[in-house]
Amino acid sequence: MFEKLSTTVEVRFSDLDAYNHVNNAVYLTYLETARTKLFKDVFRDLSGQGIFLLLVRAECNYQRPIELYDNVVITLWVAATGKSSFDIEYEIHDGQGQMFATARTVMVCFDGQKKQVIALPESFNKRPASKHTSSSE
Amino acid sequence: MFEKLSTTVEVRFSDLDAYNHVNNAVYLTYLETARTKLFKDVFRDLSGQGIFLLLVRAECNYQRPIELYDNVVITLWVAATGKSSFDIEYEIHDGQGQMFATARTVMVCFDGQKKQVIALPESFNKRPASKHTSSSE
Amino acid sequence: MFEKLSTTVEVRFSDLDAYNHVNNAVYLTYLETARTKLFKDVFRDLSGQGIFLLLVRAECNYQRPIELYDNVVITLWVAATGKSSFDIEYEIHDGQGQMFATARTVMVCFDGQKKQVIALPESFNKRPASKHTSSSE
Amino acid sequence: MFEKLSTTVEVRFSDLDAYNHVNNAVYLTYLETARTKLFKDVFRDLSGQGIFLLLVRAECNYQRPIELYDNVVITLWVAATGKSSFDIEYEIHDGQGQMFATARTVMVCFDGQKKQVIALPESFNKRPASKHTSSSE
Repeated sequence: MFEKLSTTVEVRFSDLDAYNHVNNAVYLTYLETARTKLFKDVFRDLSGQGIFLLLVRAECNYQRPIELYDNVVITLWVAATGKSSFDIEYEIHDGQGQMFATARTVMVCFDGQKKQVIALPESFNKRPASKHTSSSE
Repeated sequence: MFEKLSTTVEVRFSDLDAYNHVNNAVYLTYLETARTKLFKDVFRDLSGQGIFLLLVRAECNYQRPIELYDNVVITLWVAATGKSSFDIEYEIHDGQGQMFATARTVMVCFDGQKKQVIALPESFNKRPASKHTSSSE
Repeated sequence: MFEKLSTTVEVRFSDLDAYNHVNNAVYLTYLETARTKLFKDVFRDLSGQGIFLLLVRAECNYQRPIELYDNVVITLWVAATGKSSFDIEYEIHDGQGQMFATARTVMVCFDGQKKQVIALPESFNKRPASKHTSSSE
Repeated sequence: MFEKLSTTVEVRFSDLDAYNHVNNAVYLTYLETARTKLFKDVFRDLSGQGIFLLLVRAECNYQRPIELYDNVVITLWVAATGKSSFDIEYEIHDGQGQMFATARTVMVCFDGQKKQVIALPESFNKRPASKHTSSSE
């Protein structure tokens, strides 16, 4: 249904914690950074209409620590859609078959004016991703 | 089996994102901050033996946004123990009945010398928390 | 002219970097956290009028690394006021005579409606700090 | 004496604060990220010898807010060298003539074994930057 999209995320020295590995919370930042890049057009479109995508659930399975000079790629895809929510699944990997983590987030569509959850807009199913920054795998 | 422990976490202006709410990744930082405070003695004890507690899974359900001047309390408890891992459950709340989020993390015991997962030390079951910074509920 | 105000800031495990010390950028976060707490009433007052205090310059001298369980106190005071800007000086210390860093920031008064720098409001000189969360030294 | 080196830094959604601009502390993270990339070989070389470059002073002049989809380029150069320290100057800009900030940091050479400041190694003056990730301007 939805294609897989990938983007790289740059590890920063400050992402590391005292264990010399990327801190666990930063993985969620990587997911968000990837969403922001890959869904740039959708986000702009929706927020122009006063609609925001809120994260209501996140889960992450940490498989292998990420180090400073690792190449980090996020591959994501819409795994399920509901009436007003959708699930995104993610793989955080090195682009060469080594997995750092897998994750899933649940997003809901929220109308900033009405202050309530609303149905996913029609347009959502038609153009799930930015034409500019993404590449399918 | 294990008691519930609580500690407050201070919201920083920089925890907020462009939505004026605490960013989703920061919730995991709050959980970690609470663990570090409440299990201070256990962590020091174990790391003195070259043993580290690694996070292998985290999940968080976001119920209500956290704002800058909110009072944030983390209540946590060991919800399950396995041979070499244990689960911690968390409530992120305002100390007066309002829930911001619930979460669960899975931690494993890792021997830094042998570079491998090991069985939970005996001592773990006996003194799960710091005597100094925690308070049961 | 202006009194010295102090507040504590809690070190988080994620503030540490791979050197096992609080990362240099986080010092600016500590300064901001202290400002936000100590000037809470002023900030709310001004932002109610559509006025924001923007940081235009920061400098920090790092003297001694901060570790996870250090007690961190920020003492700050308004060191100079101009027509539309003012300087804050800071000491980041352990509350017992040990200095971690000293710093200075320059803030300007900005009108969010007019999108321009404006003169410091009269009220600024009269009540420089929150009555509730601060304590003079 | 030393050439100017440039690298891009990717703005993350979580770098923004409630003003919808990159938070002031994050500018220091950008400087560090650029140093880490551009001086990668030097850092690895030195740390292999147990030598670390510590930041002892940072100053930053904020000229224009950075927004989420801005292109951010860091140009840096060694502006002065002393016996055991050196200064780096930075421009944070959009690559097309628009300046976001200028900054300067002072770094000292620290021997991790002896726990003391040491003279800059000879090699430092000969190869100031990574051959792989940098480009002169």
